[in-house]
Amino acid sequence: MSDVSDILDHVDATLDTRLERLFDLIRIPSVSTDPGYADDCRRAAEWLAADLVSMGLEASVRTTQGHPMVVAHSPKVSGPQVLFYGHYDVQPADPIALWDSEPFEPVLRPQPDGETHIVGRGASDDKGALMTFVEACRAYVEIRGALPLNVKFLFEGEEESGSRSLAPFLEATADELRADTVLVCDTDMWDRETPAVTTMLRGLVGQEITITCADRDLHSGMFGNAARNAAQVLGDVISSLRTSDGGVAIAGFYDGVSDLDPAIAALWDRLPFDQEKFLSDIGLTIPAGEAGRSVLEQVWARPSCEINGMWSGYTEPGFKTVIPAVASAKISFRLVAGQDPEKIRAAFQDHVRALIPDDCSVSFADHGLSPATSMPTDGAFLKATLQALSEEWQTEAAVAGTGGSIPIIGEFQRRLGAEALLVGFGRFDNRIHSPNEKYDLSSYHKGIRSWVRILDALSQA
Amino acid sequence: MSDVSDILDHVDATLDTRLERLFDLIRIPSVSTDPGYADDCRRAAEWLAADLVSMGLEASVRTTQGHPMVVAHSPKVSGPQVLFYGHYDVQPADPIALWDSEPFEPVLRPQPDGETHIVGRGASDDKGALMTFVEACRAYVEIRGALPLNVKFLFEGEEESGSRSLAPFLEATADELRADTVLVCDTDMWDRETPAVTTMLRGLVGQEITITCADRDLHSGMFGNAARNAAQVLGDVISSLRTSDGGVAIAGFYDGVSDLDPAIAALWDRLPFDQEKFLSDIGLTIPAGEAGRSVLEQVWARPSCEINGMWSGYTEPGFKTVIPAVASAKISFRLVAGQDPEKIRAAFQDHVRALIPDDCSVSFADHGLSPATSMPTDGAFLKATLQALSEEWQTEAAVAGTGGSIPIIGEFQRRLGAEALLVGFGRFDNRIHSPNEKYDLSSYHKGIRSWVRILDALSQA
Repeated sequence: MSDVSDILDHVDATLDTRLERLFDLIRIPSVSTDPGYADDCRRAAEWLAADLVSMGLEASVRTTQGHPMVVAHSPKVSGPQVLFYGHYDVQPADPIALWDSEPFEPVLRPQPDGETHIVGRGASDDKGALMTFVEACRAYVEIRGALPLNVKFLFEGEEESGSRSLAPFLEATADELRADTVLVCDTDMWDRETPAVTTMLRGLVGQEITITCADRDLHSGMFGNAARNAAQVLGDVISSLRTSDGGVAIAGFYDGVSDLDPAIAALWDRLPFDQEKFLSDIGLTIPAGEAGRSVLEQVWARPSCEINGMWSGYTEPGFKTVIPAVASAKISFRLVAGQDPEKIRAAFQDHVRALIPDDCSVSFADHGLSPATSMPTDGAFLKATLQALSEEWQTEAAVAGTGGSIPIIGEFQRRLGAEALLVGFGRFDNRIHSPNEKYDLSSYHKGIRSWVRILDALSQA
Repeated sequence: MSDVSDILDHVDATLDTRLERLFDLIRIPSVSTDPGYADDCRRAAEWLAADLVSMGLEASVRTTQGHPMVVAHSPKVSGPQVLFYGHYDVQPADPIALWDSEPFEPVLRPQPDGETHIVGRGASDDKGALMTFVEACRAYVEIRGALPLNVKFLFEGEEESGSRSLAPFLEATADELRADTVLVCDTDMWDRETPAVTTMLRGLVGQEITITCADRDLHSGMFGNAARNAAQVLGDVISSLRTSDGGVAIAGFYDGVSDLDPAIAALWDRLPFDQEKFLSDIGLTIPAGEAGRSVLEQVWARPSCEINGMWSGYTEPGFKTVIPAVASAKISFRLVAGQDPEKIRAAFQDHVRALIPDDCSVSFADHGLSPATSMPTDGAFLKATLQALSEEWQTEAAVAGTGGSIPIIGEFQRRLGAEALLVGFGRFDNRIHSPNEKYDLSSYHKGIRSWVRILDALSQA
């Protein structure tokens, strides 16, 4: 690896302006799942394209059936070709009432431990994270006049809502986007001090179910007992999804799922993971889920079923004695290797249909369908990246699994034939998808520095 | 009974203006359960007081801790003293999208069978119903110069939200409101052609439960399986409330509940009640609830448990992979004779608490607590009323039970020592508490005429 201390010094000296650009991006409420924010999604894409052009790249906003893509290319140099992927869309900010500040007006909030939080929706997922890479590239160009290798950028705007346009877009642009490896910045560090490269991701099946019983909401005094209550049916459905010992009760759900490899189990046993702290950090003390399996195994290696939302009947203040005619829920499954998302979806739908009374009905809507993926752990790019991370953080970088799902990784493997390198600087307590989402200022600062080192290392890999 | 045909002819000739006044009252969106409509509730009270003054009564709006009461007195004459009770508040109009017209802009909608519907929130419950009595009194005064007996009026504005102010108000005004009998117009006819006096009402326990697990919504990929999901816990709670054969599963729930008196069962067996039509009218075919009990017994004589609303997590369009920290439900019980509402509430709360994991919590809010009531069926007032109704409708009036709850009836018995006469002209398909609530024009017209006859009959009872 070369000496990049001049670039690192420049990053340190100019962090303020790098933070201002991130703030500008967070201020755009690019919520992809809600059609009301479509203009903001386009605005975020245009902001990014303009930002990349300002640092000498060729960049454009590409229209899709959904929210637009941003594609950019650095001027041709010798050395490998990498593709950096990020997403400019964010989760909805609700419940808004639980935020301590405006979700789309980022603020710096100093903490008692000396850390400073960047608070705002997308501060971590994924605007803060993707800007660590953009700012590293900018710093490189500012000091050296050019990047040390060839970089393409792909930013999508539908990661938080199923990435529907991605597969067709990758298919159409496979030649343009081909690369030796794909860099993704959407994951966490191992702990506050230890950087990590993530090599396992879970798949996702997202389903919205709508149960309909009577043809209208009914008066519970006039029809109670005798008329089927849709909320009661939904309660029965939800309750049926988990067994009494915490497993998922859908027939065939665990088909093809292997027990954890003893070598990996031994590796994880050595990790400094504190199960009690993991739970107490979120206000809990008793692990849920499958009896007899550790929390770490459950969140990293076991498939899951979670109710993400549900609603039925009268939900406003006060009381209304109706028998709801309709009840709905959003339910998602995290999948591990060996599970076929289409089979899981079919098994779930069969399971639900069997619980619906014959004079009622149920409909299903898809919100994502992707298998689990794992990445090889022995390539030259991975090795170079781990070395660069270890130098920046002055501690050995970890190779980690994760419980999350980044469906795009499978798409890159399939469409571009490229493996991904998942490097992230998020911390466990970033509250992504929750009120008061934050990104540590040190994640941002040292994240930019880390990418400077990785760009240099990859250019020689 | 006297000849009141001059008054009845006057009602027929002036129905238009009587309808206009009802429309004016419906236009005031007096939703009591939502604090945002508090001014409208007061406006409805003031409208009623002004209307009663305009027909020569002494009327005033009385402030309470909640929405105001309207109290009025007719000029003293010889004869019995009756108290008419009604409520000017209405249920919320949501789901608004399911209305075919504006909920608070009443319209007349002619039907293929020759009936005309008065459509609007409160058209039936209780504005249309209470105005049948007001307009009967007005017609009496317009033709005869005075009412044939002494009438007091009490209109409350919290019937749809628990009648919290009623008990203290009745206690404070017991001397002022004392009467020989209480007239209530908030019930249905037996069928389209057969008027009815209702002599049984079920009690009500309304509870809102809030289950809290983690201290914030969590990312399902990072915490799935291991962190308790509040929506899952709520699903388990809801599912646990009913047994597999449709009964209520709470320990002790049926304590003190008697099986239906064989004499009443025989009477009900003879009623022209079509169970299949009852269900098909609401889009269903299979009776829910307790196996082996008829639909009529279930809706009139059996206690019930219904989920009136529930919500948790992300409920907007799109998808959000959160593990909800909080889940809530509104649940109500209809009680029959022999059930103590406080014991039922305690049994319910114990049942729920036993299902909450030790590191989660549940809280309860009250929305109503009243026992079932039944009225004597052998009094002179009842006899006179049945006779007047039979004359107007040219068919024998029915003595009916009902599945609904009118908690105020118990209060009248306790506070004023007066039994109530429940006379109503609602039809089974009025969609009260639902979108497109309606009151038949014939209910309104013949309801007014019926009250004219009842006022005359009661004056001689």
